[in-house]
Amino acid sequence: MKLEKLVGDRFKERPADCQIDSHAIMLKGGYIKHVANGIYSLYTPLKRVTKKIEQIIREEMDAIDGQEVMFPVVMPASLWEESGRYESIGSELLRFTDRNDNKMVLGMTHEEAAVHLVREYGSSYTKYPFMIYQIQTKFRDEARPRGGLIRVREFTMKDAYSFHTSQEDLEQYYDKCHKAYERIFARAGVPEVVSVKSDSGMMGGSVSHEFMLLTPIGEDSIAICSECGYSANMEAADSIIENVKDEISANMEKVHTPDSHTIEEVCGYLNMPVEKACKAVVYQRNMDDSYVVVFLRGDIEVNETKLRNFLGAEIHPAVITEESGIVAGFIGPVGITDKCTVLFDNSLKNTNNMVCGANEEDYHFTGLDLDRDVQNVEYHDFAKIKDGGICPVCGKKAITVSRGIEVGNIFQLGTKYTKTMGMTYLDKDGAVKTPIMGCYGIGVGRLAASVCEAHHDEYGPIWPMAIAPWQVHLCAVRADNAEVKATADKFYEDLTNAGVEVIYDDRKVSAGFMFSDADLIGCPLRVVISPRNLKEGCFEISARDKSFSIKCPVEESLAKIRELIAQMNTSL
Amino acid sequence: MKLEKLVGDRFKERPADCQIDSHAIMLKGGYIKHVANGIYSLYTPLKRVTKKIEQIIREEMDAIDGQEVMFPVVMPASLWEESGRYESIGSELLRFTDRNDNKMVLGMTHEEAAVHLVREYGSSYTKYPFMIYQIQTKFRDEARPRGGLIRVREFTMKDAYSFHTSQEDLEQYYDKCHKAYERIFARAGVPEVVSVKSDSGMMGGSVSHEFMLLTPIGEDSIAICSECGYSANMEAADSIIENVKDEISANMEKVHTPDSHTIEEVCGYLNMPVEKACKAVVYQRNMDDSYVVVFLRGDIEVNETKLRNFLGAEIHPAVITEESGIVAGFIGPVGITDKCTVLFDNSLKNTNNMVCGANEEDYHFTGLDLDRDVQNVEYHDFAKIKDGGICPVCGKKAITVSRGIEVGNIFQLGTKYTKTMGMTYLDKDGAVKTPIMGCYGIGVGRLAASVCEAHHDEYGPIWPMAIAPWQVHLCAVRADNAEVKATADKFYEDLTNAGVEVIYDDRKVSAGFMFSDADLIGCPLRVVISPRNLKEGCFEISARDKSFSIKCPVEESLAKIRELIAQMNTSL
Repeated sequence: MKLEKLVGDRFKERPADCQIDSHAIMLKGGYIKHVANGIYSLYTPLKRVTKKIEQIIREEMDAIDGQEVMFPVVMPASLWEESGRYESIGSELLRFTDRNDNKMVLGMTHEEAAVHLVREYGSSYTKYPFMIYQIQTKFRDEARPRGGLIRVREFTMKDAYSFHTSQEDLEQYYDKCHKAYERIFARAGVPEVVSVKSDSGMMGGSVSHEFMLLTPIGEDSIAICSECGYSANMEAADSIIENVKDEISANMEKVHTPDSHTIEEVCGYLNMPVEKACKAVVYQRNMDDSYVVVFLRGDIEVNETKLRNFLGAEIHPAVITEESGIVAGFIGPVGITDKCTVLFDNSLKNTNNMVCGANEEDYHFTGLDLDRDVQNVEYHDFAKIKDGGICPVCGKKAITVSRGIEVGNIFQLGTKYTKTMGMTYLDKDGAVKTPIMGCYGIGVGRLAASVCEAHHDEYGPIWPMAIAPWQVHLCAVRADNAEVKATADKFYEDLTNAGVEVIYDDRKVSAGFMFSDADLIGCPLRVVISPRNLKEGCFEISARDKSFSIKCPVEESLAKIRELIAQMNTSL
Repeated sequence: MKLEKLVGDRFKERPADCQIDSHAIMLKGGYIKHVANGIYSLYTPLKRVTKKIEQIIREEMDAIDGQEVMFPVVMPASLWEESGRYESIGSELLRFTDRNDNKMVLGMTHEEAAVHLVREYGSSYTKYPFMIYQIQTKFRDEARPRGGLIRVREFTMKDAYSFHTSQEDLEQYYDKCHKAYERIFARAGVPEVVSVKSDSGMMGGSVSHEFMLLTPIGEDSIAICSECGYSANMEAADSIIENVKDEISANMEKVHTPDSHTIEEVCGYLNMPVEKACKAVVYQRNMDDSYVVVFLRGDIEVNETKLRNFLGAEIHPAVITEESGIVAGFIGPVGITDKCTVLFDNSLKNTNNMVCGANEEDYHFTGLDLDRDVQNVEYHDFAKIKDGGICPVCGKKAITVSRGIEVGNIFQLGTKYTKTMGMTYLDKDGAVKTPIMGCYGIGVGRLAASVCEAHHDEYGPIWPMAIAPWQVHLCAVRADNAEVKATADKFYEDLTNAGVEVIYDDRKVSAGFMFSDADLIGCPLRVVISPRNLKEGCFEISARDKSFSIKCPVEESLAKIRELIAQMNTSL
């Protein structure tokens, strides 16, 4: 189409309220318009991007025997009451009543609707396995939408649900879907998306993965091993700490440590490295405010997700009262009050000659040897993995911590929804059983925004060929020149007839103005037709990512463009 | 895909609560599942139908320079307050508050969102005309959803909005869109959809058309001229009545008509045809209960839409009190109380020797000559057009009244939204002007259901090739026969490789069971491979609409199928 007719404004100034680049680019480039907090309208260029992403997703879901269906956006509360989520989910689930005072919700995910759709169909083992998916609008009443399309309230999502008669079958399908996700991101032009083991938290505790596009503005931290490729969300990454005991264990001695409350203060005062400290971190359970004390090596941080999962309870940082019997600032494993739960992190395994609190104001112990001085210690992993830490798979000190945006996730759900919603099937032997589910999501708008975030320069997005709004941006520089205009018109027609998607700029504006618009639209290929080029019998063909710029003879240009598109299109 | 793996149940019994056939078929055939009142999930076969319809719509909208965008489902109430519709629309507009107590609505149409999206863009005359459209979920909190997908609360709709600088330009574009709609319905396999002039009511009073698929279960009545093709919604159809005055006008005489309250009673009592009666129908304005008396010829009914538009006010049938001064059952134009609005329908033009009420209990007048006996009569059209009535275009008595389902509509909106929402542009001469809008809708799910309603038999739907869930239904009858199974598997593969969409039934079930499933799925072509056919070296190829059934040599079958698809596909 002609750029002149493209609805939407483009401008140079970065909008004041944009924290991240993709948000600014989406506004400056005429991709989105803010309608309300976390709610946007999409202009044509972004709609074209999301349609292409959706089509790639659709093809890959169909290829693993997915059946596209459609669930409602508005659902009766009763459906969510069946699963228990009407009560358990917070205010991000938008609840309202219709004209007849029926309680309704806006769908933020569709596990309930999926079970509802197939509950009768899946009544015999012969029907399994199967997978259904949809690409549909969702609404999640986020407290703090941010970053343009990165975290919104209304969004388009592909959500898929698979049903199985055994855990093995689920795992097999889960792997197939994992591979399909890798293909989706590779085809969409972002093969650098990494899958990371993630924490499925209180969802049932089974396996799940997140697909992350690495970018410094990401909301998640990811541990990646540069040696073996292991990767996991920080929340889920196993922490491996190796200690070598000092040959001689000193005796435990109580020392006076006035005004030394923090590990750094104590270690500084005693002239010891923090690695030789046995640190205490104190939490309280939300339900009854009971205390939980976690001991770990002085240089290690608590991973609260692991702690939460271990306890099976929500926690918060403690407010230590006098009645607790806990001596804040001087907590240690020897002689600690029995009114609290005491836990030990793996990082304390095999340590001696440690300093720790003496559970007495202004006193610490030195010479702590956990094996010797504390009875019945069980060690568990409550630690955050560190940059430079040991990879839990290959054992090498090769962990780096990066930031990323979650663009997809896959879950082994187990029977959480089928059980609560009473979905059963008759097995081969006539036994009544509960099917096992998996679910698989991709946020379409967020993926588009993440690609923009990961692939842009100061002038605009650098869209991958497979999802670019148009493949070619054709500029007729000096369109007031009759030869330029006629040649460009002709080439526009030739490209269009050849099935190439072109946005054609034949406005009578300066080359600089044209190019800055082209940068904002971000098509991977640019063709410039100008009086100067025509004198040489050439068009200038260049890549948006500046990887090449060639002068191509006019008569060879169409073939060259088609060749370049095929080379650059990762979706073919 | 294989029918065995298709998610969704099919069954024979007609569900008890289905008033119309398409509703029953959609449930019996595994197309939809009821989630809540007027809210459905779609299974794969219907999702495939709607995707094809959407793609046809998209291509035709793009062909008339439409730009696909996406508006939000959830919108802030403030946007609807700008246009005034937050107040003026009833409870079909679903209103709720989000977690921060902001007032929100669910989009039932997107005029406001469209103006919001382009309000800044369209600030100069040079940007016009342009059209934007979306295909998106909508929610309308209908009081009485009915008929499966015919009248629902949640639905997918294509809604388009065009913007113009002159009425002429709008009209030109409106005509283009009218033609695009004709192409859409023709391509979708329902060329019989008729466009009818419709009433745009209080929307602004300009031109609008509805596109109707004629079926006896339709909610709308349509007047169609069998001579000239004129068609209009009953609400909008001009009523033409021709009267020839009797040569001699008798004098007016008051006659005693005891116990004769209705026109039929009076005319019977006086032995006159009802066409010689001047009938009164009484309404009250909703806002102040003031009375409106409409006089019209005894055989003619009031078209309340026309009356409402004329008055610019909502009305309801009157409750006649004593204080009104109106003598119920004996109302006439001579001597009627001046406390009410008195209106005359065109059907009384040129009449004499009429009977009418005398505004006195138990008395009528005969010999009424309106020209002579009533002063300052203005005639307007308040009448319903009748079966056998006069066509307002060609003047022939060739009107037939049919019923239809509205599957699309187009409106010349004028400046209703742009004016209230403060959208302006600078014209050539620097003057600030308000753009003129058109809007254009098609209900995707309703169109699918309407096609099913108009094209089905007692066994199931007869989908047009262009929108059928699959083009070919392949049945391996006696799949336990090795030759049948191998041949059918091979042909399934051949068809699939040739790009033909096939649903393949290789279940070990009876031919009758297979065929009744095939009828419910409604693919336009059926291929049967059976031991009997194979003996003759043939496949049986038949049409779902029973228009043909041929035995085709195995080796010619693929070519034949491709030929038939091309012939039958109105979308190519």
